Amino acid sequence: MQDLNTVMFQSTEAFKKYRKFSGKQKATFLRAIAEEIEALGMDLIHTTMQETNLPEGRLIGERGRTIFQLNMFANLLEEGSWVEARIDLANLNRQPIPKVDLRKMLVPIGTVAVFGASNFPFAYSTAGGDTASALASGCPVVVKGHPAHARTSAMVAEAILKAAERTGMPKGVFAHLDGGEGFEVGKALVMHPDVKAVGFTGSFGGGKALYDMANQRPQPIPVFSEMGSVNPVILMPEKMKKDAGNIAMSYASSITLGVGQFCTNPGLIFGIENEDLEKFMDILSNEIEKIAPAIMLNEGIFKNYEDKKTIALSQEGVNTESVSKIEKTAQTQGTSTIASVSADVFLKNPKLHQEVFGPYSLVVKCKDEVQLLEVLNHLEGQLTATLMATESELIANEEIVDTLRNLSGRLNFNNVPTGVEVCFAMQHGGPFPACTDARFTSVGPDAIKRWVRPASYQSFPDSLLPDELKHNNPLNIWRMVDNEFVK
Amino acid sequence: MQDLNTVMFQSTEAFKKYRKFSGKQKATFLRAIAEEIEALGMDLIHTTMQETNLPEGRLIGERGRTIFQLNMFANLLEEGSWVEARIDLANLNRQPIPKVDLRKMLVPIGTVAVFGASNFPFAYSTAGGDTASALASGCPVVVKGHPAHARTSAMVAEAILKAAERTGMPKGVFAHLDGGEGFEVGKALVMHPDVKAVGFTGSFGGGKALYDMANQRPQPIPVFSEMGSVNPVILMPEKMKKDAGNIAMSYASSITLGVGQFCTNPGLIFGIENEDLEKFMDILSNEIEKIAPAIMLNEGIFKNYEDKKTIALSQEGVNTESVSKIEKTAQTQGTSTIASVSADVFLKNPKLHQEVFGPYSLVVKCKDEVQLLEVLNHLEGQLTATLMATESELIANEEIVDTLRNLSGRLNFNNVPTGVEVCFAMQHGGPFPACTDARFTSVGPDAIKRWVRPASYQSFPDSLLPDELKHNNPLNIWRMVDNEFVK
Repeated sequence: MQDLNTVMFQSTEAFKKYRKFSGKQKATFLRAIAEEIEALGMDLIHTTMQETNLPEGRLIGERGRTIFQLNMFANLLEEGSWVEARIDLANLNRQPIPKVDLRKMLVPIGTVAVFGASNFPFAYSTAGGDTASALASGCPVVVKGHPAHARTSAMVAEAILKAAERTGMPKGVFAHLDGGEGFEVGKALVMHPDVKAVGFTGSFGGGKALYDMANQRPQPIPVFSEMGSVNPVILMPEKMKKDAGNIAMSYASSITLGVGQFCTNPGLIFGIENEDLEKFMDILSNEIEKIAPAIMLNEGIFKNYEDKKTIALSQEGVNTESVSKIEKTAQTQGTSTIASVSADVFLKNPKLHQEVFGPYSLVVKCKDEVQLLEVLNHLEGQLTATLMATESELIANEEIVDTLRNLSGRLNFNNVPTGVEVCFAMQHGGPFPACTDARFTSVGPDAIKRWVRPASYQSFPDSLLPDELKHNNPLNIWRMVDNEFVK
Repeated sequence: MQDLNTVMFQSTEAFKKYRKFSGKQKATFLRAIAEEIEALGMDLIHTTMQETNLPEGRLIGERGRTIFQLNMFANLLEEGSWVEARIDLANLNRQPIPKVDLRKMLVPIGTVAVFGASNFPFAYSTAGGDTASALASGCPVVVKGHPAHARTSAMVAEAILKAAERTGMPKGVFAHLDGGEGFEVGKALVMHPDVKAVGFTGSFGGGKALYDMANQRPQPIPVFSEMGSVNPVILMPEKMKKDAGNIAMSYASSITLGVGQFCTNPGLIFGIENEDLEKFMDILSNEIEKIAPAIMLNEGIFKNYEDKKTIALSQEGVNTESVSKIEKTAQTQGTSTIASVSADVFLKNPKLHQEVFGPYSLVVKCKDEVQLLEVLNHLEGQLTATLMATESELIANEEIVDTLRNLSGRLNFNNVPTGVEVCFAMQHGGPFPACTDARFTSVGPDAIKRWVRPASYQSFPDSLLPDELKHNNPLNIWRMVDNEFVK
């Protein structure tokens, strides 16, 4: 491994140049990264298949998403309005004192340390959303390669370095640390004084540990850790009366999609105890029993799934409702499992509120809407919350809707939470413990805001201002001038 | 004092209602607060004069600023576009999977604890920028009254409660804790699980302590502490050749304005050693000697000024250049003082980089532009940095300009840093230690962003969406629809 101080010195030197690069220049770099990743072809896909046990189709899709994200940030830079330019013109005649000319825009904060996710070896790892958004913002990036897909990470890192070189980016704009399994390299990185922000996607344990570590720094830095979520789903009775069967079918798919290894996997399902819920359970169980066990990302994740599931299923009052009836053909295959519990028991046992990462869901049976609301009031922060309801149920249960709104980043209606659209209106992030700062998203163009700060220029000569703030708006971007949005 | 748990319970209950209030409703509340503060008339001014030793004219001006800020946030709410609505329309024909309808806007995060500043008993205290921005966002506020102006704080709190009652705000939307001098009440407030964010303005010691305390919480929360800053001023030689005399005159005023008790007070002045700098020193010294000592905010601040100044002046290589020649007429009057030091000594002694809160400035004499740049590279984060330069000097010294840009929130040209305009383009906040999170400002409409988080609605029925996100845009606000800004 390279010496961390050398890496950070080069990164900091690179920042001095890179932060002054235009949006168009940075866009060229991002597009080149996308091209270089594509150029790795099936070699990359096959390597990642070996390392992650993810199927080819899924990985080809995820590579597409990664390339889409890089190009999306390139588009954002080329359009240019993302810098939130604000201009307040001088007014020399203002009483009692003249008003000065003030202009503000977003500028990058410095080197971002990125810790990728095991479950998205492309889209939320080495060249994933955190790296793409940080490079787009004008920040250099240092990636700590994920030990669960180390070769994939190294290949993608090479592609990024190649893109940096051929588009004339400063040496050090991107660096890749291969730190192996231990925490030492990651810890040294987070504690390094020249690291100015951290992006992490992964487990609650890992994300919180990183956050706490960073808080020991003499200089505080922003740490955006996207961590666990159980993504509660609420089954309202009128909707269930109409549609329990279809809902059960779609949730059987959502719970087991990608062997349940998505951060938006629906881990808790809340219903009102009645015959429609019984019907839902029967159909869901029937489907779950037919789903073949599939290999999980790695042994650690498989073991974690087994351990967490065993703990959950062994709690008093928890019934195992269904388990896949298809036999395992490999040791680290995850077996889809559904359990149920009464709301009374759920309320008393915090262990049941925790994420079981894998193809597992716990159905919580409430006596009525009053108890349902009580249970929801005891939930922690979530990436998503989903309401399966009729429109009249939404109207009649404003408090339930509002409670879910307040605890989640994304409120979903008559849909499954899995499937995270990459677009401006996506919020991927939510109140703690879903992430460490709910004021930001890790998905979509707004993910760039994690790595930037507003900077004002007072009474600066027009010709020396950044183009974004020049009087005649040479970039033709949207700006707020004297409180009005104009272009 | 009221029981903190009761206060927090009421605040949390209030949040359930208040977060659903429309922008127009919240604006009515803010405008009513402004009216109630105005209605306190000269009683308030006289009370504050007694508590803070600030002169009547200054306090009348600051009350005006406070009222302006409340009305500014009311305007922001009435206009409505601040919620950053983003809409991505559904596309059922998209391949390979249909695109869902997603809509996002900013929503409040919950109760904000506010710790006001001693040096702005109105504008950055009980009904100041933090409170106004938090109430505007839809968050309830709990203020820890500042012990240095406890009666002022109580009077303003009464005005806010009166405004809340007459505009039909939920009980608990605002609370005021009179905690006296100790840290117990403040600590209990910051550690309370129902506090969801903290706003602080004050010293580095206080702000960092609060930040560290909050990091001990099981649930992390955003803490925005605006702390110290020495606000470096760079005197470039060509500009000095033309204008050393006028610059000295304007800095004599800026350094001593309000007995130097502003967070943007210019505490460090960097120049190139030559006859123009000597001329500057002579005129500055001459002016400083004529400035009458004036009573500082309170004994603690006076004592702190004396202690910090004594430490600075006693450092090896520091010369006291000038001290006011007018005799003190009261014990806690602060005496204006200018010192100087060579850049060589400054570089070696970190004690000289620290803020001396009061009418004090240290002039650092550099051999040349190379040493100037070296010194600037050793400075910590700042609220402001100021360049006194000709335009050709700006062009010729890009690295100096860029270094100042990178370490400060506001970069100021041929002006004094004191005087903080309240407008969209103002950035008041900067890299640590100027504040704990440079990604936000405490002054201007954007200060609201500290207390909000993006929240998405997926596939929600139009009629049940917040007005900000409804298809026909009933509030007529600026929104981003399918990547385009439209109204």
